[in-house]
Amino acid sequence: MKIFLKLSYLGTDFFGYQVQNNKRTVQGELNRAAKELFGYECDITGCSRTDSGVHANMFCAAVSKHGESSLKTDINADRIPRAINAHLPNDISVLSAEWVDDGFHPRYDVKYKEYVYRIYNGYVRSPFEDGRAWHISRRLPDGAVERMNEAAQAFVGKKDFSAFMSHGSQVESTVRNVIYADVKAFDDLILFRVAADGFLYNMVRIMTGTLVDVALGKLLPSDIEKIIISQRRELAGVTAPPHGLYLNKVEY
Amino acid sequence: MKIFLKLSYLGTDFFGYQVQNNKRTVQGELNRAAKELFGYECDITGCSRTDSGVHANMFCAAVSKHGESSLKTDINADRIPRAINAHLPNDISVLSAEWVDDGFHPRYDVKYKEYVYRIYNGYVRSPFEDGRAWHISRRLPDGAVERMNEAAQAFVGKKDFSAFMSHGSQVESTVRNVIYADVKAFDDLILFRVAADGFLYNMVRIMTGTLVDVALGKLLPSDIEKIIISQRRELAGVTAPPHGLYLNKVEY
Repeated sequence: MKIFLKLSYLGTDFFGYQVQNNKRTVQGELNRAAKELFGYECDITGCSRTDSGVHANMFCAAVSKHGESSLKTDINADRIPRAINAHLPNDISVLSAEWVDDGFHPRYDVKYKEYVYRIYNGYVRSPFEDGRAWHISRRLPDGAVERMNEAAQAFVGKKDFSAFMSHGSQVESTVRNVIYADVKAFDDLILFRVAADGFLYNMVRIMTGTLVDVALGKLLPSDIEKIIISQRRELAGVTAPPHGLYLNKVEY
Repeated sequence: MKIFLKLSYLGTDFFGYQVQNNKRTVQGELNRAAKELFGYECDITGCSRTDSGVHANMFCAAVSKHGESSLKTDINADRIPRAINAHLPNDISVLSAEWVDDGFHPRYDVKYKEYVYRIYNGYVRSPFEDGRAWHISRRLPDGAVERMNEAAQAFVGKKDFSAFMSHGSQVESTVRNVIYADVKAFDDLILFRVAADGFLYNMVRIMTGTLVDVALGKLLPSDIEKIIISQRRELAGVTAPPHGLYLNKVEY
């Protein structure tokens, strides 16, 4: 049996999830904390690789003893969150822990993941949203959020999302199944939510940049389908900055 | 005429509002930014002194030329927020600017101020609430928030709040008029809101510590009135930490 963790982290001060030499990463902190708690080196497998500055409201990872497919400990699973948090910095928090079978894989077994992208549309920046939302200070025209939501519906379905992928990433297939997508506003915050069986590199951030073009009237909601069909990255919008992006939910 | 600013700041990395030698303060940053924008030294008078770590959703300040009672500039008032923000760090944001009479005083002319205290009642800490709410991990009993709200009503009115003042502060009178107070919960967040014509040193933080004692069943809502009448600090609860406190509104 392995230990399956749900955790959250503020991505601001991390060079992303995955371990890198001499850089502060979420996985690096988890490795260190797990070793301190369990008393031996552990292997920690995450549900995805988030980029530098990207946050997680929910991230999933499995812990086994280094080089083995399981983990042994006398600590009750329900005590692990607080116990491991005592060894973690304040910008990571383990929310829950449970036992799972050795064969469980946090990445391959994902049914779908949900991301949320936060846009802050205040006239001036907010100190409380700094590093936590993309500040768009230009006042959006009437009906902008409704049009963004309409445009987001064009993402739903099993489609080739090449136009919404950054160059330089190598994948076997650029087809992904988007299960739902919507855009809602709460005062000055605009939230874009999207769930899929998998995401291409920078897919949510390019989707967001494109939806902002719809909001600003540079694109029509009906243009989204054309951009998808074109498979041309340059027809989509900019890649929105990482600090507005949150991995929000992972379903197995 | 002076320039009247409304601003917000994240208090985490400031040694409070007021200028101190060799310490990073909100007033110090405003002084520097105003000089850079207007081209001469300015006097900046704030609506209150917030302590180290305390935040402001709305803080008010007036700007005049150093040693004078007014300020001269060709910059339109409605352009000042973005113009001065370009000279300020990301943890301060000027929200609005308008002209006011020379005689206006941001502290003495306050009708009332509203503070909000945020408590995060999640089982484990949240990376997103770190430094922004007081984390109370103990599960509060059923009806705790309702009892806190009932207890908060005892604060309302013109009363001597000596029992809710930290020692070491010198004031002419310990009588303050609390206009309203309430406690509400939003998922794992508990918000205590209180407005008064003025506040004693640490008054909101001691009120909060006392309300938490009510939540935990150590005190009854009916004990609040007795504590006020006693004028004894040691009968009230602990001083809640500064990082949950927000100056939320200032009315003139």
